[in-house]
Amino acid sequence: MKKLTFLFILILNHLVVFAQQKMLSVDEVVMKQRSSLAPERLAQLQWIPQSNQFTYIGKKEGKEVLIVEKAETLVKDTLLTIDEFSMVVRNLLKNEKPITKFPAITWINTSAFRFLYNNSCYFFDLNGKTISLLASAPKEAEDLDFEPLTNKLAYTINNNLFVNVNGKPEDVPVITTDGQVVNKKDMITNDGTYGIVNGKAVHRNEFGINKGTFFSPKGTRIAYYKLYEGMVPDYKLMEINSNDSNHKNLTRPTSFQSIKYPMAGNKSHEAHVYIYDFARKRNLEVVTTGDAEQYLTNIAWSLNEDYLYIAIVNRAQNEMTMNMYDGTTGVFIKTLFTETHPKYVEPEKPMVFLKSDPNKFIWFSERDGYNHLYLYNHKGELLNQLTKGKNAVTDIIGFDPKGTFLIYNATSEDGLSKIAYKLDLKTLKSIAINGLEGQHNTLVNDEGTYALDQLSSTSIPRRVTLFDTKGRELSLLLNAKNPIGDYKSCNIKIFSIPSTDKLVKLNCRMILPPGFDSTKKYPVIVYVYGGPHAQMITNNWLGGADMWLYMMAQQGYITFTLDNRGSMNRGLEFENAIHRHFGKIEMEDQLAGVSYLKNQKYIDPTRLGVFGWSFGGFMSTGLMTKTPETFKVGVAGGAVIDWRMYEIMYTERYMDSPQENPDGYADADLTNYAKNLKGRLLLIHGTNDNVVLWQHTLTFLKKCVDEGVQADYFVYPGHEHNVLGPDRVHLMKKITIYFKDFL
Amino acid sequence: MKKLTFLFILILNHLVVFAQQKMLSVDEVVMKQRSSLAPERLAQLQWIPQSNQFTYIGKKEGKEVLIVEKAETLVKDTLLTIDEFSMVVRNLLKNEKPITKFPAITWINTSAFRFLYNNSCYFFDLNGKTISLLASAPKEAEDLDFEPLTNKLAYTINNNLFVNVNGKPEDVPVITTDGQVVNKKDMITNDGTYGIVNGKAVHRNEFGINKGTFFSPKGTRIAYYKLYEGMVPDYKLMEINSNDSNHKNLTRPTSFQSIKYPMAGNKSHEAHVYIYDFARKRNLEVVTTGDAEQYLTNIAWSLNEDYLYIAIVNRAQNEMTMNMYDGTTGVFIKTLFTETHPKYVEPEKPMVFLKSDPNKFIWFSERDGYNHLYLYNHKGELLNQLTKGKNAVTDIIGFDPKGTFLIYNATSEDGLSKIAYKLDLKTLKSIAINGLEGQHNTLVNDEGTYALDQLSSTSIPRRVTLFDTKGRELSLLLNAKNPIGDYKSCNIKIFSIPSTDKLVKLNCRMILPPGFDSTKKYPVIVYVYGGPHAQMITNNWLGGADMWLYMMAQQGYITFTLDNRGSMNRGLEFENAIHRHFGKIEMEDQLAGVSYLKNQKYIDPTRLGVFGWSFGGFMSTGLMTKTPETFKVGVAGGAVIDWRMYEIMYTERYMDSPQENPDGYADADLTNYAKNLKGRLLLIHGTNDNVVLWQHTLTFLKKCVDEGVQADYFVYPGHEHNVLGPDRVHLMKKITIYFKDFL
Repeated sequence: MKKLTFLFILILNHLVVFAQQKMLSVDEVVMKQRSSLAPERLAQLQWIPQSNQFTYIGKKEGKEVLIVEKAETLVKDTLLTIDEFSMVVRNLLKNEKPITKFPAITWINTSAFRFLYNNSCYFFDLNGKTISLLASAPKEAEDLDFEPLTNKLAYTINNNLFVNVNGKPEDVPVITTDGQVVNKKDMITNDGTYGIVNGKAVHRNEFGINKGTFFSPKGTRIAYYKLYEGMVPDYKLMEINSNDSNHKNLTRPTSFQSIKYPMAGNKSHEAHVYIYDFARKRNLEVVTTGDAEQYLTNIAWSLNEDYLYIAIVNRAQNEMTMNMYDGTTGVFIKTLFTETHPKYVEPEKPMVFLKSDPNKFIWFSERDGYNHLYLYNHKGELLNQLTKGKNAVTDIIGFDPKGTFLIYNATSEDGLSKIAYKLDLKTLKSIAINGLEGQHNTLVNDEGTYALDQLSSTSIPRRVTLFDTKGRELSLLLNAKNPIGDYKSCNIKIFSIPSTDKLVKLNCRMILPPGFDSTKKYPVIVYVYGGPHAQMITNNWLGGADMWLYMMAQQGYITFTLDNRGSMNRGLEFENAIHRHFGKIEMEDQLAGVSYLKNQKYIDPTRLGVFGWSFGGFMSTGLMTKTPETFKVGVAGGAVIDWRMYEIMYTERYMDSPQENPDGYADADLTNYAKNLKGRLLLIHGTNDNVVLWQHTLTFLKKCVDEGVQADYFVYPGHEHNVLGPDRVHLMKKITIYFKDFL
Repeated sequence: MKKLTFLFILILNHLVVFAQQKMLSVDEVVMKQRSSLAPERLAQLQWIPQSNQFTYIGKKEGKEVLIVEKAETLVKDTLLTIDEFSMVVRNLLKNEKPITKFPAITWINTSAFRFLYNNSCYFFDLNGKTISLLASAPKEAEDLDFEPLTNKLAYTINNNLFVNVNGKPEDVPVITTDGQVVNKKDMITNDGTYGIVNGKAVHRNEFGINKGTFFSPKGTRIAYYKLYEGMVPDYKLMEINSNDSNHKNLTRPTSFQSIKYPMAGNKSHEAHVYIYDFARKRNLEVVTTGDAEQYLTNIAWSLNEDYLYIAIVNRAQNEMTMNMYDGTTGVFIKTLFTETHPKYVEPEKPMVFLKSDPNKFIWFSERDGYNHLYLYNHKGELLNQLTKGKNAVTDIIGFDPKGTFLIYNATSEDGLSKIAYKLDLKTLKSIAINGLEGQHNTLVNDEGTYALDQLSSTSIPRRVTLFDTKGRELSLLLNAKNPIGDYKSCNIKIFSIPSTDKLVKLNCRMILPPGFDSTKKYPVIVYVYGGPHAQMITNNWLGGADMWLYMMAQQGYITFTLDNRGSMNRGLEFENAIHRHFGKIEMEDQLAGVSYLKNQKYIDPTRLGVFGWSFGGFMSTGLMTKTPETFKVGVAGGAVIDWRMYEIMYTERYMDSPQENPDGYADADLTNYAKNLKGRLLLIHGTNDNVVLWQHTLTFLKKCVDEGVQADYFVYPGHEHNVLGPDRVHLMKKITIYFKDFL
């Protein structure tokens, strides 16, 4: 018996050893890095409003259950099983299939939550285990936005705005002559068409704009965008007909879908803001005078609904004017303050009014060189700069009801960690309330007394704790195991190197192959993004790397990434160093990384590869053509080639217009460098890319052909800017094969 | 001194040896195989009408001269130097640059010729060395067609037909409201627009149709096509904006140009024939009753202009009706005869009236299984089958004025040679008048007494002789040297193998690397076309091979080609064996070639590659996917993937319609086999391909992505079905690199 146990242990050990030899596959890293190969999490972790209770989705006997815990007592309870939830829903909605996963739920109080299901919003009463309909939209609806005080659901269909206030809409939606499916009763606008868009995000989602509807705080009105874009040129996306493999239908020629695409320097669209008053059933335009092509950003309501605020940015993007309008009439009242910068201003967060003192608001600004908080009164008078330092405040996550402190997230000075701070609003002292280094995602209860901390770092897959906002840890809720512990292990190093001009430190991440031997020579794949609004390297699980980079390291490549100037969370100067010269300082910084690599004896300098997508495609194509002796192999996906063909909002912020900055555009136009290409370069594009148009890489290829230069190409028919879904496996295999073939 | 000479000879020898080691480059084979690396020729070799004199372009002191030779005396004379020609032209046309090459000239008699220059037709008088204008068209004109008896020049602009009869057109062409540039005076039609096309070739150039205007023999009338295609779906060709590298202009989104593309099984266009009478200034429609989608083919006039003949083919293409119409009124007179076939009929040559007996005509038909000549009288009564045999008559090249004999070209029974025959119209005996085997291009004088023979074969680069039509050689005019004699030499073998079903012999061509060693193992590149209307292997210089195949052989690849069933010049059954099953028997025959290759000890069966374009792209993609273990590497350019997406005329002839033959189409739909692909396959397409739409390879790629199958891709922006011009160098380098990378 004993012998047998010993043998069994031996076998077990052997299995463990064998297991630790496991190699990641492309299928695994693409399909599982956000599911079974991600660190375990507490799904839908959140506080119940006005309480010290938090909830999350757990599992019992393999099925989802809704769990509640009380912060004071640490008592844990099962509130609802998925089977119970499913039964209740199916009692109301006949013909529904059993539900096996909770939809996203929003807590109302300790005994009720609401959720969206099939475009309807439902109220779930935990006491009676009953549900009722709050508001509903037709299945064609998009841009759903729910107002919880008055149970209104805003939505759009075919560029018109609707708001449902009665629950279930009319059974048979009206189909108008131009094919629109609408619910007349809910209709707020009726001028929507190709070229006139109501209730959707505008300005191509720049300036933090991610929606087009803004309910007033009490739900009596709704502000929304109306966008005129008839003057913007059309771009046609190819729709390759789906193949009818049973040959029953005739095949038709490729058809085309038009989109409006405003290119840098060209005519832009024109945004307006309207307010609809539900009591008066009346639309009124907010009187935003000024250049028709200006940007209407960061819409906010005063808490009493009396005023609407819009941060207006001029087309040149060097001046922001914070305007106050009458929330009833839309009439302009006054400008609260302005911000200007010789390079650009970029407001991305609407003002936040203090519930404890509704005449004051907090404003995010980079005016001192880093993103910090500023306290204003309703007259637009600056009261205080609330935060300071060479780090960036990223968001406000909590207040105490008395207004004595607020809690916010900020990066560390090196940009790698994100930590929650408690700010005493009297002393203006901030104290970190998270302990360990890393990326903290902190949730504060309404009282500001308790917080949940979800921490990940290069050494911590995920650690979820309950603590009080004095910083005292109360309970360890989850300590996730290494989700790839069974696989061959790669060492991830995060460090910084000086830029060539010595002005800044540049964060780097290197993933070393298993059993790394510094006396050997390794090929390197440099993964690059390099554009603003992004940061590739964080003190997060895998160092922020896509697991594909880890997989390639397992297969013997050192994978390396450097966040060059232009990337975020390192301050304004670090970011705006790129102004008017996309690609210049970014590539200099990347080449500082290459120099560092070449100085390491374990690097084979003849086998460097580079890969990037979008701005990273611009960077990798640029590195392959502007410094053609550096990289042997490059892969550039969805690459910008000539910034004149990219959208106005993003491009003109950084590059000014082509008319104002012809040299900057010409320097950045990679078709001018196509002739230099020496290495193997694979360009990849989704045929239906509506962000970086297909035109970019086709233009580059045409120039390559003109110049007699060989490049490689692949397209993903029907895909937009990113190849997502199962086809991403195909994409990453294609890239893997390319590096294996040629690096 | 002697020693020095000896040394010099040594050096020379060395240079020669060195020279014979020269390797062809891709640039050379693409750019020079039809110029400096082609066998020398006598440019513009032709007989002067009604004479025994022939002319060609020669060179004197490096400049072009027009040379005449008299067949009887063999006396040779210089008629005109290019400098004289240039001076005369520039006297008339001010501001013209000096002309260094003769345009294409057409002889009128021994002292005059005409030529087209900048869309005008000029008369050149050799006696006076003067020129005069015969007729003229604006620079926008297309489809120029000159009538020599009355000096009329037909042309089209923007889908309208014009005929100039007065020489120079009005100086300022009229620009109509829809942007048409027209010359009102010349205008024959005015309904031309997108969807209504006058005076151009119809039916997508099938049925031998290569023009849309047909002057009556005396020039008093013109018959022309009017095509209605508004009912045919649009296909849009992408126009990528040319890159403005000096950044002065704003870049615009990609624009699109619509074309009409009738896909198999779908609604087709409708053709009509009109006659315009120049005296009466009147358009009359020829009354071609019947199915609107029928094909109006092989238009011919009787020599006296009284009648117009149209070979009408039904849409199903299994019946041809030869109709006779009144040449003045367009009224139907009678059907002369019909031809039917259970598979298809395909008339491609208009009837030829005998000048010696204008009531008789000759008709080409494959009705006995091979293309032969049939003599009819004007009542449509068959008088005689003029030629017989298991070979194909390709064209009639001469008559004697008395009508005792005619001279025609025909292939040899193996299809490899083309030889001129003299047919005695009384005895119906044909005698070959060319001596050696090979491809003869024979020109007979108007008397039918002398002929010029331009012969090429695998062993003869080009040999031009004068002989009499009894077959007696009179003079050797040119014996071209091997144009690639300085390069490493490859052995070209032409032979045949039996098909797997033993029914036919299949012609093969193999090019062996220099210094071929049968004890070694060579990789093979199979070049394939495989579709109807084409023949890859002939007893011609290089065996009919593209010089790139010779270059690849120089570089160590055996290059192999086989003409499978479906290819031309082997008889009707050989060609129509493919009916309803594109790709089936063609691939079986190609696999017979592969079996042959695998039985040769000097072949490395693990290193087979395949390359084809158009139908050949269909074949190579088919071979890569239907027999995925056979070829390691494939390249498929402009490939048809699914015949439902190819044009009606060609596809339905061979495949019937998708509705009639769903299984045949499904079997041939390569998207159904994408999942099988194992080797490396590079697909290539011109983005503006208006023959095989880009849609084909994009659809295939989409299926590959869906199936998780890797394929490679490249596109040529702006190129149509074939990548021509200097960019072809890029294309052939791309293909060369691909085989070198992976085969």
